[in-house]
Amino acid sequence: MAILSALATEVLIPVAGVIGIAFAVVQWVLVSRVKLSPAAAAAGGSKNDYGDYLIEEEEGLNDHNVVVKCAEIQNAISEAGATSFLFTEYQYVGIFMSIFAVVIFLFLGSVEGFSTKSQPCTYSVGKYCKPALFTALFSTASFLLGAITSLVSGFLGMKIATYANARTTLEARKGVGKAFITAFRSGAVMGFLLASSGLVVLYITINVFKLYYGDDWEGLFESITGYGLGGSSMALFGRVGGGIYTKAADVGADLVGKVERNIPEDDPRNPAVIADNVGDNVGDIAGMGSDLFGSYAESSCAALVVASISSFGINHDFTGMCYPLLVSSVGIIVCLITTLFATDFFEIKAVKEIEPALKKQLIISTALMTVGIAIISWLALPAKFTIFNFGTQKEVSNWGLFFCVAIGLWAGLIIGFVTEYYTSNAYSPVQDVADSCRTGAATNVIFGLALGYKSVIIPIFAIAVSIYVSFSIAAMYGIAVAALGMLSTIATGLAIDAYGPISDNAGGIAEMAGMSHRIRERTDALDAAGNTTAAIGKGFAIGSAALVSLALFGAFVSRAGVKVVDVLSPKVFIGLIVGAMLPYWFSAMTMKSVGSAALKMVEEVRRQFNTIPGLMEGTGKPDYATCVKISTDASIKEMIPPGALVMLTPLIVGTFFGVETLSGVLAGALVSGVQIAISASNTGGAWDNAKKYIEAGASEHARTLGPKGSDCHKAAVIGDTIGDPLKDTSGPSLNILIKLMAVESLVFAPFFATHGGLLFKYL
Amino acid sequence: MAILSALATEVLIPVAGVIGIAFAVVQWVLVSRVKLSPAAAAAGGSKNDYGDYLIEEEEGLNDHNVVVKCAEIQNAISEAGATSFLFTEYQYVGIFMSIFAVVIFLFLGSVEGFSTKSQPCTYSVGKYCKPALFTALFSTASFLLGAITSLVSGFLGMKIATYANARTTLEARKGVGKAFITAFRSGAVMGFLLASSGLVVLYITINVFKLYYGDDWEGLFESITGYGLGGSSMALFGRVGGGIYTKAADVGADLVGKVERNIPEDDPRNPAVIADNVGDNVGDIAGMGSDLFGSYAESSCAALVVASISSFGINHDFTGMCYPLLVSSVGIIVCLITTLFATDFFEIKAVKEIEPALKKQLIISTALMTVGIAIISWLALPAKFTIFNFGTQKEVSNWGLFFCVAIGLWAGLIIGFVTEYYTSNAYSPVQDVADSCRTGAATNVIFGLALGYKSVIIPIFAIAVSIYVSFSIAAMYGIAVAALGMLSTIATGLAIDAYGPISDNAGGIAEMAGMSHRIRERTDALDAAGNTTAAIGKGFAIGSAALVSLALFGAFVSRAGVKVVDVLSPKVFIGLIVGAMLPYWFSAMTMKSVGSAALKMVEEVRRQFNTIPGLMEGTGKPDYATCVKISTDASIKEMIPPGALVMLTPLIVGTFFGVETLSGVLAGALVSGVQIAISASNTGGAWDNAKKYIEAGASEHARTLGPKGSDCHKAAVIGDTIGDPLKDTSGPSLNILIKLMAVESLVFAPFFATHGGLLFKYL
Repeated sequence: MAILSALATEVLIPVAGVIGIAFAVVQWVLVSRVKLSPAAAAAGGSKNDYGDYLIEEEEGLNDHNVVVKCAEIQNAISEAGATSFLFTEYQYVGIFMSIFAVVIFLFLGSVEGFSTKSQPCTYSVGKYCKPALFTALFSTASFLLGAITSLVSGFLGMKIATYANARTTLEARKGVGKAFITAFRSGAVMGFLLASSGLVVLYITINVFKLYYGDDWEGLFESITGYGLGGSSMALFGRVGGGIYTKAADVGADLVGKVERNIPEDDPRNPAVIADNVGDNVGDIAGMGSDLFGSYAESSCAALVVASISSFGINHDFTGMCYPLLVSSVGIIVCLITTLFATDFFEIKAVKEIEPALKKQLIISTALMTVGIAIISWLALPAKFTIFNFGTQKEVSNWGLFFCVAIGLWAGLIIGFVTEYYTSNAYSPVQDVADSCRTGAATNVIFGLALGYKSVIIPIFAIAVSIYVSFSIAAMYGIAVAALGMLSTIATGLAIDAYGPISDNAGGIAEMAGMSHRIRERTDALDAAGNTTAAIGKGFAIGSAALVSLALFGAFVSRAGVKVVDVLSPKVFIGLIVGAMLPYWFSAMTMKSVGSAALKMVEEVRRQFNTIPGLMEGTGKPDYATCVKISTDASIKEMIPPGALVMLTPLIVGTFFGVETLSGVLAGALVSGVQIAISASNTGGAWDNAKKYIEAGASEHARTLGPKGSDCHKAAVIGDTIGDPLKDTSGPSLNILIKLMAVESLVFAPFFATHGGLLFKYL
Repeated sequence: MAILSALATEVLIPVAGVIGIAFAVVQWVLVSRVKLSPAAAAAGGSKNDYGDYLIEEEEGLNDHNVVVKCAEIQNAISEAGATSFLFTEYQYVGIFMSIFAVVIFLFLGSVEGFSTKSQPCTYSVGKYCKPALFTALFSTASFLLGAITSLVSGFLGMKIATYANARTTLEARKGVGKAFITAFRSGAVMGFLLASSGLVVLYITINVFKLYYGDDWEGLFESITGYGLGGSSMALFGRVGGGIYTKAADVGADLVGKVERNIPEDDPRNPAVIADNVGDNVGDIAGMGSDLFGSYAESSCAALVVASISSFGINHDFTGMCYPLLVSSVGIIVCLITTLFATDFFEIKAVKEIEPALKKQLIISTALMTVGIAIISWLALPAKFTIFNFGTQKEVSNWGLFFCVAIGLWAGLIIGFVTEYYTSNAYSPVQDVADSCRTGAATNVIFGLALGYKSVIIPIFAIAVSIYVSFSIAAMYGIAVAALGMLSTIATGLAIDAYGPISDNAGGIAEMAGMSHRIRERTDALDAAGNTTAAIGKGFAIGSAALVSLALFGAFVSRAGVKVVDVLSPKVFIGLIVGAMLPYWFSAMTMKSVGSAALKMVEEVRRQFNTIPGLMEGTGKPDYATCVKISTDASIKEMIPPGALVMLTPLIVGTFFGVETLSGVLAGALVSGVQIAISASNTGGAWDNAKKYIEAGASEHARTLGPKGSDCHKAAVIGDTIGDPLKDTSGPSLNILIKLMAVESLVFAPFFATHGGLLFKYL
């Protein structure tokens, strides 16, 4: 047995969760010391001044008007825009989720004809497990719980981000270092809150369900899988809806503002500017929060399900079974220490230090986490144990399992660095793309697409090696914990990720509040680093999604009783080729949605410029609300078809074509979706930074391409606009597609195994 | 036994081949009656006038200067450009092929340690087959033969196209109908020559090899597979090299000419204009000829290999074994009749009749072929026979097999029509893309990409249904003959396909020779229809490639002794995900190559406009040769890395990781490559026709977007330029990628089965 007792495990997990939440609160208090109310600002600069090391020149510190204006804009973004959109979104999604909850209950309940009698277990031969009807009930409950946790996570993230954006703007007056700390702390609030609450809710749910299930681990963790499904379903709508919202506004604002009217980004005269800033919060923040929460919940569920039918479950080794949760607990502590390196141990003094500081976060968290995993593997795992492997048990050592988690963790770092190489304008790939703007938008697009395709190579090899090694060591459990390893530093990952849109918004507020160019330059520098980190975050999300989906896929195949998924069987092969097509279908829908919504936005913005007198001169006031409404309506309407495609495909395929074809679909969607997701994110990120490279003009080469408004720059703006739906709508939604289809198949596996494949049965 | 005797089969196949070749010669004679020599032209219009039904007004019929100028331009395209490029290309490819031939011999010879003793057969238990050393020798020979046939096919195609282009221009003076017939007849020359010579050479090779092999069918057809590998290898270099050549020139010419200098397409002042026209011939004609020849050779080989180890081979039923060749023979006769519908039975009188006439070709050939297949299935097959199915034999009826061929044929037609729907400007998808140009190039690109993604859905379902049905009926043999069914009307398909670039060139020559706008309008109308048919041709090529690859994949798996390709085995799964990545890697290479070569071309064209006095005014002469040299050098240099990637991957994976991982790679590349290939072709085709839609201004809607030079049109030109490498370089090369890797794996299967998987063996 392991060194750590069951009781110690019971204590350790919630304690880590509470520490994470407490840390988030502390960070929030620190951010809140930047005062936004005019009264506090009137009392003088001292209250804003929580340190005494003002590193750069101060300006306009006591200008009441600026503070008032920032507060106003923040309010418009947060209340009128983001909050009201999310509430509308949640209403529609709520209806869909309620219907789906009923479907889950009916489908799973029907497996044993709604009988309330105990049934023979699926895996533990000769034992009796709880009836399917109750597992259906608990699955439905955990599905709803997952959806609600995901919803709350996204909403809180948005709230924190909109709380922080204007504060970052105000801090930028004191210098880039102060602004960085404010933005990063706010990101940390979100990161720690999400990671910790995800862990705590999951932990509580397990303990509550245990009251009914007792030591029927198989049934317990089968019903817990609903939690992952709920989290991911919510994430899908959040990502797609938010993605369409943000990019319709962004593309619309850019096409008229930057291209036609030649006014700067985020100029308050642009009617779509508020919608654009709202979009950053509902798409990049709320959507991404839900997404990574989903990944985390699913990889935990996948690992727990396999653990329950391995020696941990058979021997009732609670500590061993909770190993995935313990890894996450250690992750929270490690990320806490890592955060201090960015906010307290070191200090940013110049623009060029921002990107290295963020990169250091990744390296430090990965290095510390490796030690953390080693310790927890030693404490929580027996020296030898057996793991379920498609009907047989495979012997694994605790060091072997440590290696699985570690390889996932380090593969994540490699993916992160490759992404950085291809999307940061410090390296040649983005500079080449910028250079190709010399010959116009067409070559820019050709080079950008080629860059995205090329950026797939190393991450895929990294994923392939992780899969091979972790599977060889510990079968599907190895892959599940490798995914957890990649996600174990999620708090830091989310902090870095959320930092980007907050900085972006801060820049927007500075521009709209009419603050000086120097401040805008500082927020732009923060934002440029944010673009790269956003791409890195997406790299992590996709890499972990690939591993998670495979682990879920393995669990599904086991649960559905499929012995072998043979590519040479036509049932599987047609699934494979159709599955590989789904990401294209899905992307076609989301991109067309962004395009259509952007067209409407462009027409509205043009109409306002043409009909509102004095708008260009700055004397007339634009009608922001109409633009917000266009984005809201478009995203609500357009998120349903792609969402339905993803949610219904496993149900239809499983019910009519059976588990073999569904296995093919899952594998096909996985191997094809990963490629499109990575290339779309990186192409978009590269175009965005190629544009910023030309705008910033920091090198000799960059200056020959610029300045803003030159032909090269115009070509770069076109690329950036094309990249918007790729990197913020289609790309990041695809990793939810592959995860969600896998977890949904797993949840419905008992039904498909019993009643599925109607078409082939009757043909 | 079948109704058709072995002797009748021996006669029927070469007779059909000879009829096809004779028909090609007749068409050539008809085309050659349009005289290009000034002497003949001076003798008056009568000699050009092979009918007496001049349907439209004539103009400039006796203008000697025009004829002389056309002849000059034709000569520049054919001799200085295309021929010299192809010779250079063939030298480099020749070296590569020679080395590869040695590799084949050494690898296959080493299977049994270069022993000259007979060995036990792989499939026929208890019997002895010819030694592996001789099969290595014959495989190498058939590899070289396939490569040479493919090379000659491409070269002849180019010669015919460059022979026909100026003649089409001259005929356009008499009306669109005459020009159409000339272009279409020339396409038919190529189509029939290729289809027939492919059949005849394959037939002769089989008979020659039979002298050695006797009734060792297994060894005979194993060595014949080299023919498919040779054909496809040559096709790969042809497509990639030609694709880079043509698009570097096209993109370069457009970017400076159309975008910067505002001069029309194909304007003789543009220094890249000759290179552009050469490119159409070496890329679209020679490349495509080699490509479809390769598909045809491979699907025949795949079917023959399976037939040889089925009851046909076991019972020495020569007619049954030759069924694939008989289907192709019938195809030639059917296409011959179909062609008469376009050239003799009906007559094109107006521009709007062109596209329907071409579409009718597809429908007529498919309908007639269905009857043809039914007859030959009844004549050549026994009522019941057994087919090899992974170690067992499966009973099939002749009507079942007819159904397999027919479903492939009709799936091809469906793919063709879907492609037409998404790429013709007569329907809403392309019109929507054109409409999105209102808001600039960015929305045009977003809508175009979404269109391409969407266009994948129905073809994939069509392919999936064909696979499922034909596999259920006749296992892998069913899939192989379904592929043959799709390719059975290849002569018509090639005729339609070649017609496009010929018309494109004819338009170029008209512009360069300074002919009137009315003539240019006619050639433009021919060309617009040609864009759609080119997309349809690519649809066929990709659909058939998917089926062929799967059949080859099945044959490989059998030959390599793999019992099951289980996605859940990590060896297979890592192959699957890496295989799905290869099309991206390959596309990244080819697109970057086009981009870089285009950049060089742009610089050269700009340099010439800036330094040659009087070039814009038409008094100075551009230096065409330098542009031709840039395209030639770039494509020779850049075709090697992507070619090597495709050729070496199966060798490396098979040798180091073994047949299981290689199976995964093949399946992954297949299911992922098909999607990218279809979407890339259709996106490119749609952008091209959206631009033509705006230019032609044929409807109320189109006129609101135009005219040429408007902002909308400029946005459309950018889309068209981006689409060039997608539709003519990356997209069409990808189907060779998936076929070639499969056929190469099949050829090397004996080696991999014996010596492969070194890495896993020693780890």
